[in-house]
Amino acid sequence: MVTINDIAKQAGVAKSTVSRYLNGGAVSEKTKAKLDAIVARNDYTPNKFAQSLKAKRTHMVGAIIPRLNSYATNEALKGLENSLRLSKNQLLITNADQNREREIEAIYTLAKQKVDGIVLFAAEITPEHEKAFEESATPVVIVGQSHPNYHCVIHDDEKAGYSVGAYAVANGHRNILVFGVDEADQAVGITRRKGIEKAFVGKDITYTFVKTSFSMMDAYKLALEVLPETKATFIIGATDNIAIGIMRAAHELQMDIPNRLSLAGFGGYEITEAVHPRITTVHFPFHEAGILAADILLQLIEGKEMPYVEKLDNHLMIRESTQAIK
Amino acid sequence: MVTINDIAKQAGVAKSTVSRYLNGGAVSEKTKAKLDAIVARNDYTPNKFAQSLKAKRTHMVGAIIPRLNSYATNEALKGLENSLRLSKNQLLITNADQNREREIEAIYTLAKQKVDGIVLFAAEITPEHEKAFEESATPVVIVGQSHPNYHCVIHDDEKAGYSVGAYAVANGHRNILVFGVDEADQAVGITRRKGIEKAFVGKDITYTFVKTSFSMMDAYKLALEVLPETKATFIIGATDNIAIGIMRAAHELQMDIPNRLSLAGFGGYEITEAVHPRITTVHFPFHEAGILAADILLQLIEGKEMPYVEKLDNHLMIRESTQAIK
Repeated sequence: MVTINDIAKQAGVAKSTVSRYLNGGAVSEKTKAKLDAIVARNDYTPNKFAQSLKAKRTHMVGAIIPRLNSYATNEALKGLENSLRLSKNQLLITNADQNREREIEAIYTLAKQKVDGIVLFAAEITPEHEKAFEESATPVVIVGQSHPNYHCVIHDDEKAGYSVGAYAVANGHRNILVFGVDEADQAVGITRRKGIEKAFVGKDITYTFVKTSFSMMDAYKLALEVLPETKATFIIGATDNIAIGIMRAAHELQMDIPNRLSLAGFGGYEITEAVHPRITTVHFPFHEAGILAADILLQLIEGKEMPYVEKLDNHLMIRESTQAIK
Repeated sequence: MVTINDIAKQAGVAKSTVSRYLNGGAVSEKTKAKLDAIVARNDYTPNKFAQSLKAKRTHMVGAIIPRLNSYATNEALKGLENSLRLSKNQLLITNADQNREREIEAIYTLAKQKVDGIVLFAAEITPEHEKAFEESATPVVIVGQSHPNYHCVIHDDEKAGYSVGAYAVANGHRNILVFGVDEADQAVGITRRKGIEKAFVGKDITYTFVKTSFSMMDAYKLALEVLPETKATFIIGATDNIAIGIMRAAHELQMDIPNRLSLAGFGGYEITEAVHPRITTVHFPFHEAGILAADILLQLIEGKEMPYVEKLDNHLMIRESTQAIK
């Protein structure tokens, strides 16, 4: 079976380009010619999509999100929605408000609404999730967390964590403070943290971990307590929102960033460029994750086989909020 | 017919309190006793809700939002969702991406999904909207814009505009620059602007208006062009996002806020407190707007009559980004 992945590899273009091409979106003349040839060679034509359509499709796709006001989720939703729209599908969004029970309930609700598939922006996948997915008998793509039984689009959180940790170490910082989140969020609470800590191994680092939530305000309040006592010269917030909460506290405490404290976050949120100093962060391709989730889900709906895990890359963006120890 | 409004007035409590009470949520003992008495006197009992339930309720409510990543909309959605959930209704959100055609399409889609009612976060109501609402035969509440034929929850945008304009004038500013948005958004593009301009009448103000979008990045780019030439001492951004875009440009141009330029926004977004200087803004009760929209919609679904317009108050929050002319 030829997948979108194979075609992308053969053509040397992004999967989203192939998807755009298959869905009749804009691609360059050159790319189109290349893809036409590969598709013809593989007998894999866009028409097959139409042929294999199930009789009872509603052309509705459901997304379950953990919370409103998350930049990362909203960017991914935009990518997801645009891709779905190109193929004439409509997205219905339900917010689970970081409540596992509501998340499970939303799976059943969406199934009852007869959506063709579900995209779950997940913190963790429990046996109740698995039961709900099984009973709803709907194709599923998980975004942001990995699970062996489901198709997942994940970010390389360990790499992201490692790049920030290694950057701090390489710049001479020996006392590092991390504002992290609960392990219930596996990607951020476990994998990202693991990456950070990996960078400290064998490096004579004094390392402190404090636990906060995803809320900017919670990080701010905790930082007001923690910063006056800290001897750390480098602070890592587990998300950009957390970093901004810390920045606000540092400003109120008149602790200069980056002269007294270096500060880094994760995400590459738009706001990290709007504040000053601009915040060093790891850029994640959230929008691309949404596009990829749409691609995979649409293929699953068509009954195609797809690889189970798609891991997206990310990169460190060094800005003015961090500097080397002098 | 006794409405929730009447009960709230008689009890001297907020409508959301009455709604909470009727829906079995938490209210104080004292309030409960007062409401019990009024409800008994009016023969208006929570049970009537159940009695008048339509046979075919799905307990789904649809919300159509203009864009993801809007703090104002997300706050209102939170209020809407919590209220709906208290009364065992589930919210399905569709994003129209500031596209009128998609908005109309979403009305039909939600009707096809047999939602009990629709909340539209609107920029403008066109005849196509009216036609879609008529054909979908579903109760509707509009949030953020007013229209004579629909139940609307609106903010007092004229007052908000006036309070910022009057504050600038009262603090000795005579050259004022406004970053506004298109008139297609009536509340922000017309009413809010009208309020600002009202404050300048007969005051010998040099006033410049430039048009941007709701995007932080667009405001930033426009400000990079406009700020170097401006003689204004006070800049008003039509939303907090716009103000933050302007702030970023001012910082890059090394124009000190508030010493060279005072800067104010609208919304009361969380981020205006996290940046420094903290931004003077008008706080709108977005969350309350969502709660109110849920209350009204649920009453309409029950076949009750409700007042057509609910206008919510707002207040100026003076912070460090503005100061008097010395």
